[in-house]
Amino acid sequence: MRLARVQTENGIQLAISTGEGAIMLNRHIPELGSDMLKLIQDWDNWSAHIREILEEGHAPEPVATGNWLRPLDRPGKILAIGLNYADHIAETGMSRPDRQLWFNKLPNTANDPYNTIPLPRAGSQVDYEVELVAVIAKPCRHLDAAQARDHVFGYCVGNDVSVRDWQRASPQWTLGKSFDGHAPFGPWITLDSAVENPHALDIQCRVNGDVRQKSNTRHLVYSIWDQIAHLSQVLTLEPGDLIFTGTPGGVGVAMEPPRFLAQGDIVRCEISELGHIENCCEPEGAGDGPGT
Amino acid sequence: MRLARVQTENGIQLAISTGEGAIMLNRHIPELGSDMLKLIQDWDNWSAHIREILEEGHAPEPVATGNWLRPLDRPGKILAIGLNYADHIAETGMSRPDRQLWFNKLPNTANDPYNTIPLPRAGSQVDYEVELVAVIAKPCRHLDAAQARDHVFGYCVGNDVSVRDWQRASPQWTLGKSFDGHAPFGPWITLDSAVENPHALDIQCRVNGDVRQKSNTRHLVYSIWDQIAHLSQVLTLEPGDLIFTGTPGGVGVAMEPPRFLAQGDIVRCEISELGHIENCCEPEGAGDGPGT
Repeated sequence: MRLARVQTENGIQLAISTGEGAIMLNRHIPELGSDMLKLIQDWDNWSAHIREILEEGHAPEPVATGNWLRPLDRPGKILAIGLNYADHIAETGMSRPDRQLWFNKLPNTANDPYNTIPLPRAGSQVDYEVELVAVIAKPCRHLDAAQARDHVFGYCVGNDVSVRDWQRASPQWTLGKSFDGHAPFGPWITLDSAVENPHALDIQCRVNGDVRQKSNTRHLVYSIWDQIAHLSQVLTLEPGDLIFTGTPGGVGVAMEPPRFLAQGDIVRCEISELGHIENCCEPEGAGDGPGT
Repeated sequence: MRLARVQTENGIQLAISTGEGAIMLNRHIPELGSDMLKLIQDWDNWSAHIREILEEGHAPEPVATGNWLRPLDRPGKILAIGLNYADHIAETGMSRPDRQLWFNKLPNTANDPYNTIPLPRAGSQVDYEVELVAVIAKPCRHLDAAQARDHVFGYCVGNDVSVRDWQRASPQWTLGKSFDGHAPFGPWITLDSAVENPHALDIQCRVNGDVRQKSNTRHLVYSIWDQIAHLSQVLTLEPGDLIFTGTPGGVGVAMEPPRFLAQGDIVRCEISELGHIENCCEPEGAGDGPGT
């Protein structure tokens, strides 16, 4: 099953995404509300009802592309691992880290799957990074890798948009990774139960149709389960937290010469079984004056 | 004025902290709720009413130390600047950064002003860092330094607890700075209007009574206003966001030999005009089993 948030004439609805459109859940369960985080937190109470609705065979309604919203409005934490595909490590000229290398993106980066990627006034080297994103289901701390999958709700496609001039100007990546709108993800959450093996998915990123990144999640250096186990030594993972699990080789900054994203560029990130997101790059809102 | 969150027999209340105790706001304005974030967001509508209550001269109620809660339950962003006092730069052996060095703490670090600091199972070098914390009042982007103060709601005392073995084991500080409970702050928010000059406050940290850090916020390398201006180039600062503005010299890792926090250590962080927080170090909950 694929769970989505959809903009409709009657406000935002939670929905099941089908091949052809969406079955609006709020039409069938008005008391469900439109907050995906609450649905994840209370999944054990709702899942049987939602599966019934799916099985009733309602005709899906068409959804205009731009009406698919990011499945979580505001993730609590967005954790991201660096240097986690061998070909990406090679292109950066760095060596394979002897332990997991974690950073994070701040919550203002959350963006919709078909919305604009803002090209910031303050930075010029904007780059893409397609990633498999895991969504946490339940609070957890001190997990073994063998326990990790039970705590995953599902998966999305994400783009860890990175402003390389800011990222390289500081020893810490926080700001270079956290410009407003620089984490589009979605287009929906494919539930873990619907993905046989998340470590066997084709992953690619195209810019204006040209394939820039192309790999398979079997090439992850640290598996999703190892990642969750490692993080849970430090902090409590919570429902709706996002884990960006690493990007394969082919980023713009590693090309010779480097190629960064420019106005009008269309970045399409795609993962087999999970769908795709597609974002056009545009200058940060011209209407934003100082202090607004 | 100093705004607090207080645990009472009747649940959590927003309150005005006086020298002697607290004036419970929910007793006078039931519709206010107990969410400080909502109060900050809606401050223009409530401030006159709250000032009236203060002027009515109600007797403050006593508050047991442990009933002062962190003034914001779950800050949206916790941003923190590194190497921002000259004496701290010197003790780390690093040179003054030629631009602001930002990192962040994840929201699971938020902790109460008199609660326990957990000594984690997974790390052994736990250290203190007293900091002046600024609380953002209004959404802002692209501010000049001259505009910054208008966007500050008030100030707290904070402790940027840091697990040095984790911080040093990775080029990125995210995990070393983000163990559960490693950002106690409070004990209340002293409104900006009540602080004549936040760059002229004595700041100190004591461990078991011994003064370890002692400085004045006039020694900040980058002022609070410069910090807000810099951040706002990258991201939208939002009401309730916290900015940890840097720590002075005297951290445990820089002592010879290094001295880290141990079970039973009492860490008291104090800033003139803002009050103090005091946290005892105890091993991470012995009752937490794997997977819980």
